Amino acid sequence: MQIFFDDRQCLHDPKRELHNGDWTDYFESASRARAIGSTVGKADAPGDFGEAPIASVHSPEYIQFLKTAMTRWREAGRSGDAIGYVWPVVRRRALQFGRIDADLGQYSMDASTPLTEGTWEAAYWNAQCAIAAANTVLSGDKSAFALCRPPGHHAGRDYLGGYCYLNNVAIAAQHALDNGRKRVAILDVDYHHGNGTQDIFWDRGDVLFASLHADPATDFPFYWGHADEQGEGAGAGSTMNYPLPRGTKIAGYQEALRKALERIEQFKPEMLLISFGADTFSQDPISHFELQAGDYSLIGSDIAALGLPSVIVMEGGYDLETLGQNTAEFLSAF
Amino acid sequence: MQIFFDDRQCLHDPKRELHNGDWTDYFESASRARAIGSTVGKADAPGDFGEAPIASVHSPEYIQFLKTAMTRWREAGRSGDAIGYVWPVVRRRALQFGRIDADLGQYSMDASTPLTEGTWEAAYWNAQCAIAAANTVLSGDKSAFALCRPPGHHAGRDYLGGYCYLNNVAIAAQHALDNGRKRVAILDVDYHHGNGTQDIFWDRGDVLFASLHADPATDFPFYWGHADEQGEGAGAGSTMNYPLPRGTKIAGYQEALRKALERIEQFKPEMLLISFGADTFSQDPISHFELQAGDYSLIGSDIAALGLPSVIVMEGGYDLETLGQNTAEFLSAF
Ligand SMILES: [Zn+2]
Ligand SMILES: [Zn+2]
Repeated sequence: MQIFFDDRQCLHDPKRELHNGDWTDYFESASRARAIGSTVGKADAPGDFGEAPIASVHSPEYIQFLKTAMTRWREAGRSGDAIGYVWPVVRRRALQFGRIDADLGQYSMDASTPLTEGTWEAAYWNAQCAIAAANTVLSGDKSAFALCRPPGHHAGRDYLGGYCYLNNVAIAAQHALDNGRKRVAILDVDYHHGNGTQDIFWDRGDVLFASLHADPATDFPFYWGHADEQGEGAGAGSTMNYPLPRGTKIAGYQEALRKALERIEQFKPEMLLISFGADTFSQDPISHFELQAGDYSLIGSDIAALGLPSVIVMEGGYDLETLGQNTAEFLSAF
Repeated sequence: MQIFFDDRQCLHDPKRELHNGDWTDYFESASRARAIGSTVGKADAPGDFGEAPIASVHSPEYIQFLKTAMTRWREAGRSGDAIGYVWPVVRRRALQFGRIDADLGQYSMDASTPLTEGTWEAAYWNAQCAIAAANTVLSGDKSAFALCRPPGHHAGRDYLGGYCYLNNVAIAAQHALDNGRKRVAILDVDYHHGNGTQDIFWDRGDVLFASLHADPATDFPFYWGHADEQGEGAGAGSTMNYPLPRGTKIAGYQEALRKALERIEQFKPEMLLISFGADTFSQDPISHFELQAGDYSLIGSDIAALGLPSVIVMEGGYDLETLGQNTAEFLSAF
């Protein structure tokens, strides 16, 4: 299986995040990418496919914001990483501001996802990996893996959050549709709900989004991923959420997975894109499922049994000791 | 003029706020209330009118949240003040959570308005002051002043923000309507847009909301208070926003004020409620207008010339040296 990674993805390097009312070390570190890379095998640098595939998912204003935010933050006299402090919780709409703090809230959903000097470049090459993996599968390979980091599935069309800036899996899915595929499915098996991906394809009938994740009543991102969220308009019924309780073990996980896979089969997609997170692992420091070493090959096999061309995109997973091995195990099924 | 204040309002005492990407001292200190109280003259403690007038503006879930948040924060093992870290920026809806962090985001709009042990009690007595002032005017007095602190105009029906927890002026306005008045007007002359008040009465035809404030393109709360926001449904045309540029002096201020007062006269309210903030002052440490000592009597006189029974509710103002004097000057016109 071809694997894509670019060293520039490590240029994104936040110093800290807001957590439990105070600063804490940033969990989504560049070491994650190195831990995965050193285990899953040789990676290729992606080609440069430019901004167009990114702009087919994210708004031009948001892309411009990501590119310029740090310069504006510095011009405002601020040291350290950039984060917002107020958010448009009601009647959010596209507005133009003359202040970086306003844009930080307009284009984000949390105070835990800082922008740093290298964020745009890292996110850009991250997205190129996802596009390269999609191209590989579009060209006939059975599967490909985009070693994305920072992750992407919490990022919406015009907002960052949950460690995510560009929605890599959404960019890959849209790229497949823009290159001849008529229907694609996205399966999200990260511990956390892929709210950004859901939001991007919320009213779209050509993309099925199915997500298994910790119940948002207790886990981030809280406000999305509840079972009654099923899409709207042309997308009504094309969003499927399977919230699972903390403590979920492989049996409960596979039961929900079977339902999601049945729904994907019914949808008859031409390609499957998988948001893979290893933060479902029992020892993950920020998560609360009870999957064990060995379970990832079972999950991989269940999904691979669909027999669909598959693009696997890395999302979360924060236990540096096991992250590479669990990911490699999952990939081995494809 | 009768003045209402209760010492318990000082029980709210946050240690710090998130500002420019890091912690800073909390500007909205209890010293503000003491600075005003020592200058404007003797204040009376309000009666206890209970929770019903509060519940006619704020949702029961939000009130319950305010009452229990700190206990839940401590139960979650957290020290320090409580603040959220993620917000429902799209498709916000009423949801039930099993985690205090989720509720903190569900019921707030920023990361700069912490909850402390004394917040609910302070906010409660704060609201009682506003109700007492409304009752005084309902009983025939020409005017009354509620020395509210913390302020209220950024708080919505079910969210806190901008140093505000209960929307004192909205509670007083609704109380007047619930006690026989058919139409009331709220004039907001704080430096910042009263987004919470606007939101509460957004679709209401019985309350005119008019606000003069710094252009939200550059100033908090950014996402609301733009000139094109005019209400909806039965409230269409009953919201009037007059954003003004940084650097505005008394001449420009009075010109916008004249327009707002004309609109209020046309509305023919039976009572006027004023959200008064002294943060329009040139020396205010967080604001950028250029009003001077002496200007507040001009503004007060312009408003008092309407001849309407007037309830004045304190909002912002952060220059402790001049806060009392500017407020006293404003009040002297009524
Ligand atoms: Zn995750
Ligand atoms: Zn203010």
